[in-house]
Amino acid sequence: MLENVDLSKSISKEEYNSITEDLRIRIGELQRKAWKMDVPIIIVFEGWHASGMTEIINRFLLTLNPMGFDLYTTGKPCYQEEQKPLLWRFWTKIPPKGRITIFDRSWYRRIIIEHNSRGKASKDMSKCLDGLTYFERQLTDEGYLLIKFFLHISKEEQQNRYRDSKKQGIPLFIVEEEEQEYLNEYDRYLPLIEGILERTDRTAAPWTIVESNNRNFATVKILAKVIESIENKLQAIESEVKVGQNNHNEDCIVPNIDSSVLEKINLDKSISYEEYKKEKKKCQKKMALLQYELFKHRIPLIMVFEGWDASGKGGSIRKFVQKLNPRLYQVIPVATPSQAELARHYLWRFYTEIPEAGHIAIYDRSWYGRVLVERVENLCNSYEWKRAYREINEFEETLSNYGTIIVKFWMHLDKEEQLSRFKQRENTTHKQWKITPDDWRNREKWNLYLSAADEMLQKTSTSWAPWTIVESNDKYYARIKIFHTVIECIENELEQRGLQ
Amino acid sequence: MLENVDLSKSISKEEYNSITEDLRIRIGELQRKAWKMDVPIIIVFEGWHASGMTEIINRFLLTLNPMGFDLYTTGKPCYQEEQKPLLWRFWTKIPPKGRITIFDRSWYRRIIIEHNSRGKASKDMSKCLDGLTYFERQLTDEGYLLIKFFLHISKEEQQNRYRDSKKQGIPLFIVEEEEQEYLNEYDRYLPLIEGILERTDRTAAPWTIVESNNRNFATVKILAKVIESIENKLQAIESEVKVGQNNHNEDCIVPNIDSSVLEKINLDKSISYEEYKKEKKKCQKKMALLQYELFKHRIPLIMVFEGWDASGKGGSIRKFVQKLNPRLYQVIPVATPSQAELARHYLWRFYTEIPEAGHIAIYDRSWYGRVLVERVENLCNSYEWKRAYREINEFEETLSNYGTIIVKFWMHLDKEEQLSRFKQRENTTHKQWKITPDDWRNREKWNLYLSAADEMLQKTSTSWAPWTIVESNDKYYARIKIFHTVIECIENELEQRGLQ
Repeated sequence: MLENVDLSKSISKEEYNSITEDLRIRIGELQRKAWKMDVPIIIVFEGWHASGMTEIINRFLLTLNPMGFDLYTTGKPCYQEEQKPLLWRFWTKIPPKGRITIFDRSWYRRIIIEHNSRGKASKDMSKCLDGLTYFERQLTDEGYLLIKFFLHISKEEQQNRYRDSKKQGIPLFIVEEEEQEYLNEYDRYLPLIEGILERTDRTAAPWTIVESNNRNFATVKILAKVIESIENKLQAIESEVKVGQNNHNEDCIVPNIDSSVLEKINLDKSISYEEYKKEKKKCQKKMALLQYELFKHRIPLIMVFEGWDASGKGGSIRKFVQKLNPRLYQVIPVATPSQAELARHYLWRFYTEIPEAGHIAIYDRSWYGRVLVERVENLCNSYEWKRAYREINEFEETLSNYGTIIVKFWMHLDKEEQLSRFKQRENTTHKQWKITPDDWRNREKWNLYLSAADEMLQKTSTSWAPWTIVESNDKYYARIKIFHTVIECIENELEQRGLQ
Repeated sequence: MLENVDLSKSISKEEYNSITEDLRIRIGELQRKAWKMDVPIIIVFEGWHASGMTEIINRFLLTLNPMGFDLYTTGKPCYQEEQKPLLWRFWTKIPPKGRITIFDRSWYRRIIIEHNSRGKASKDMSKCLDGLTYFERQLTDEGYLLIKFFLHISKEEQQNRYRDSKKQGIPLFIVEEEEQEYLNEYDRYLPLIEGILERTDRTAAPWTIVESNNRNFATVKILAKVIESIENKLQAIESEVKVGQNNHNEDCIVPNIDSSVLEKINLDKSISYEEYKKEKKKCQKKMALLQYELFKHRIPLIMVFEGWDASGKGGSIRKFVQKLNPRLYQVIPVATPSQAELARHYLWRFYTEIPEAGHIAIYDRSWYGRVLVERVENLCNSYEWKRAYREINEFEETLSNYGTIIVKFWMHLDKEEQLSRFKQRENTTHKQWKITPDDWRNREKWNLYLSAADEMLQKTSTSWAPWTIVESNDKYYARIKIFHTVIECIENELEQRGLQ
């Protein structure tokens, strides 16, 4: 994409001033309109060193209303960022509806630096590019407008600018140590960058190559492209609205599942209290030791608890963490999303909370809410929850590629046992707050939840993040099964890595 | 406070189990009640190494509903935290109304480590303790319940535990390098800790010394103290409500100011367009260079813009940043607070956004909203805005102690000039969005805003953060005055530090 680009294009200062005045007014209008129409916008700037990016970005920023955008400069990752998958820092920065986030270099820069300078294998690079593609597609699927610019200059121009900048007092840019190498290796990086641009040039998020030998031309091209992209996006939304606002909802169907995973579960399994006490003590001791192994080897562990109301999620978690070090685990109860969370991709809030390397994150309900409660209660449309199976698998794959152990529990119960637990809660003073009208309403929709759970278990059991169904009519049996499953997973992982 | 404490107190396992069951139920009730009554709670755990803190905290956490608390472990500061004043990381973690934040070691730990291990002067320590006192008082003034525990063990017990832990496989705690020294220096740290505890033992936020040789006893004492503190707090609120919900509002008074600062301002000052253009170019060039000086020497700069509607804040900021590097400055427009912001101390959102060392943060409106719009529009009560003068001075003092340069501008205008600018906005298509009914309403309250501004200028002009009144009837004059003021401030600072 970078070959044969005519880099001689330029615009004079007078011409530039007169053009940009109009463009600025138009961009202001569009920014306000996108804000009103709740469209989130992400603009990515990548390019060669000395391509004039800081100045061009500053010119671009000055056309925007500062009330509506955030600029994020992608520097060297800090300690916290190094303890999470590459995309974490970018996921946490995506804008809410109606706002613009501008990335002054982005995930692409990190990939280029990390994979070339550190000489990682090209297999890793390929996996990484898959991850980026998931990320960008998830955003555009959700309605994000994603505009990507690559500021292109010739090798000669780059060399000239290096020379000029030495003469002046002001550095062209702030070069971090890890990038030093990048500076004088135009020829070596060219095919790499070319390859990445080609592979990630998708219809929904195409690249725009910006001829940047002349900064006036570059700025005008960027302004024009941003205007065009926002106009197209707003038009597309308006015409979609005309065709029928709820067309995504129309095919809200009953899932077509021949065999139910959950119907075959034998819920009679149980163990005695004595056996439970003995085994619990053993497991808690074992887990306390394994927690330090995870910490020592910087392996993150994610445990997901889903299941029926009153199936014992909370109690199981309490027993599980009783002997753990609270500095290294976190229980994350997932409730109704906040304003800020509703304004972004639904995975955003889960990305922001993934555990640091070496820590344990325990989710009491999770991202599976999308295909359970949100589906059953029509809190999202069918286009959204159907898409979610793939998004969730990709999310978990990303975490797993980073080295995270993922254990997921579906705590299963029959309707009678649930009823007796509900009644027990109603009859115990200090437990009454636990039972709400919502619980009774959910119970009436038992069959809808059953088929949603069933479909979920089938579609999201992957080799990297399998589901474990926990027979939970007997809570002692359930708790011990959970301990055993987690311990086995950790031991397997340690063994596979040759650490045990 | 640590002398003569009877450390032999203990509780047997059976006794412990039966007591804690009741306490747990009570704490659950109180947690729900505090949540309903919007009371934010902060619980601080400090103590000796090997005092059993992790286990005791874990036991305490297990009595709480995980839906309502956050645990924050105070480790070594990360890169970002090192670029901000000490309290920044704690300010950003304070809970919203109704939630609990538990600090597993806190600002006290950081002070002890930083000031003793690194051998900082005791004068610094004293300043730092002042800062803590401001912080804690601001929180309790705002209605936060602050509970502080110090887990105390004897030197002999500490040595015994070190020995035992070596025998077992599980480490007692994770020791960071910077703390190694702390481990075997019980005698040296005792008077230091004693002094800090005494100095920070305020009525509104007292210390509780917890005898921790026996963990059962320690846990029970903590549970009992937390219960007592929450009960007292809730009772105090309830009785206050009975006496009269708005008693803070009763004395909503017209400020008693004999002389007005603003009336004496000569608004006729102006310069020609040619002069402006020439001077602007010179200043922009100068600022571009100074920006790198700030970055090089890690000096943060804060610029505050306050002033009348249409006084030219936005335009002045645009011109100011036009030639700056966007990676090193940030424009922060301050609008209506979000849900999350309303649920915390009003300074919280400003603490979260202070610039990194070496960066420039430019505020288009600021924390002064508290004593301007919030005061005039009755968005807070008079107790709150009157308190704010002191809180703001303390806030700015904290930043200044860290080395931040603070420049504050009041852009002053007369009523006629404002009217003509409003009309111009109404008559220019692409400027119409800038003028709203709010602007006209504010204009009607000109005199109220005038006396609020006047009082603000008098009460918050400090040696560390003085106000500059900018005569803004002529926007060219105003912009150049702003440039000159900032440049002078930076140059003075560089000179004082011997950097120029």
